[in-house]
Amino acid sequence: MLNIIFMIAITAEAMSGALAAGRRNMDLFGVALIAFVTALGGGTVRDILLGNYPVTWTQRPEYIYLTLGAAMVTLLVARYIHRLYRLFLLVDSLGLVAFTLIGCNVALALDYNIAVVIMSAITTGIFGGILRDILCHRTPQVLRHELYASVSLVIALLYLALLALGISETLTLSISFATGIILRLAALRWHWSLPVFSYPAGRWGR
Amino acid sequence: MLNIIFMIAITAEAMSGALAAGRRNMDLFGVALIAFVTALGGGTVRDILLGNYPVTWTQRPEYIYLTLGAAMVTLLVARYIHRLYRLFLLVDSLGLVAFTLIGCNVALALDYNIAVVIMSAITTGIFGGILRDILCHRTPQVLRHELYASVSLVIALLYLALLALGISETLTLSISFATGIILRLAALRWHWSLPVFSYPAGRWGR
Amino acid sequence: MLNIIFMIAITAEAMSGALAAGRRNMDLFGVALIAFVTALGGGTVRDILLGNYPVTWTQRPEYIYLTLGAAMVTLLVARYIHRLYRLFLLVDSLGLVAFTLIGCNVALALDYNIAVVIMSAITTGIFGGILRDILCHRTPQVLRHELYASVSLVIALLYLALLALGISETLTLSISFATGIILRLAALRWHWSLPVFSYPAGRWGR
Repeated sequence: MLNIIFMIAITAEAMSGALAAGRRNMDLFGVALIAFVTALGGGTVRDILLGNYPVTWTQRPEYIYLTLGAAMVTLLVARYIHRLYRLFLLVDSLGLVAFTLIGCNVALALDYNIAVVIMSAITTGIFGGILRDILCHRTPQVLRHELYASVSLVIALLYLALLALGISETLTLSISFATGIILRLAALRWHWSLPVFSYPAGRWGR
Repeated sequence: MLNIIFMIAITAEAMSGALAAGRRNMDLFGVALIAFVTALGGGTVRDILLGNYPVTWTQRPEYIYLTLGAAMVTLLVARYIHRLYRLFLLVDSLGLVAFTLIGCNVALALDYNIAVVIMSAITTGIFGGILRDILCHRTPQVLRHELYASVSLVIALLYLALLALGISETLTLSISFATGIILRLAALRWHWSLPVFSYPAGRWGR
Repeated sequence: MLNIIFMIAITAEAMSGALAAGRRNMDLFGVALIAFVTALGGGTVRDILLGNYPVTWTQRPEYIYLTLGAAMVTLLVARYIHRLYRLFLLVDSLGLVAFTLIGCNVALALDYNIAVVIMSAITTGIFGGILRDILCHRTPQVLRHELYASVSLVIALLYLALLALGISETLTLSISFATGIILRLAALRWHWSLPVFSYPAGRWGR
């Protein structure tokens, strides 16, 4: 089931990447590459950091085709996509939770310590979006706005706590997804965000 | 022979990197580093993605010296380099094809599936230029302009088709290089490009 | 002793990352992530390039906590931090030398050739700052200003020469640190810098 949600999540992330590329007037190739990187970049960075070879998508070519397909569909439906706003946010939240849990599981299977497990979860959850923004030449949004990366952190902690308590897998997944989606949608609805740190540009320091 | 073309290609890519660094008023060190990354970054990203350790250039220090030498020569001849425009384009096209074929061969030797072989080819072909543009703080050009990344894709497909047909290596290489150079120069001459996807910035979506 | 200096260096680099994030008005999460990447990114890139798995910080969770702690302290003392200017420069110089020497030692232990050992030293020394600047969406400062990256190169060469001469470890470390700090502070005091390469933007070339 986590796998089905993962496929849906990859699709949503690929579409988000394609739209970001469209805002930079990229050509078809750029759209396809950025869709791919947005969807699978987080897991790729995680696999490289953890030495988890071979990198996941190299063994699952269907993920590659899925992201490219999602990018092409985005081009066709871009004019109407704003009508799907609410659906998209829901799927995007599902994806953030799915990526986070998969990141936890990969690091746990490799016997890393708890701090690395949490870093792995967050990396899987947010690095696709960071790479998308770097390739689209803009400041990474997940480091500035919204409760996005923090949701990933909260879900990782919650998931690990539920695992430690020995709760059944079904219940653990249900609680994690419900909490993640509610947190994310509530944050969007009421504009929750973390405190911002502003340090004046004129000050010293590199 | 592919190796000699590869050395020429590295030199051309290093010079392209040095010129991009010069446009950002970088110091000697920045010029050298960006020349190195432009020339060898694509192969490095490929090796890391495929787990192809040790990374190629770490076993071939002469590649390091070659890129640094090319960067220094670029500084000396920068004033006259625009006269070499046509030669540079030719060498750059040679390089794109050579990088693409090497990317195919590395992934084939590691028994990756066909989709990963093509990703490996394109990554080797274009990621040096993408890293160059990220370090020079500009939107990656290969994702926006010209038929550049697409030439890499076409050549990878052609090369794999010729291999599958059992054509001799010499003929396969000749056809690949001829097609790549003609495609690239024709695209530059008649301003061929892929369709561009424009999505208005005001619209929703991250 | 190199380890204690390394811990101090990580702290200083994390604080430099937190300040850079503050200049971009990032939220708490962004500040923490950029502090982490600035402090540990150089060593991470080195480990990945050299295939030095597992990546160092994954086996030392205390490094993760140290960078996060340093980021949080930076938020609290940001208003007064300009008074610590001189102390910060000294610690930052210590850190550059410590990172450089560690980069040498890691590559030497893996039996890489001398060119790769020097690349490893420089990568460890400067890539944290480069990643910080990419995430903060600005041109990497170490490639443009000050004698920073070059100090890393000089110290790496000096250290390898002293090792080759069979000088005792204590003396080698003392000379390296003294030279690095003097070079760096002298460069800041008298505005030493490498020659800059300026290539007009209107010219051809990607």
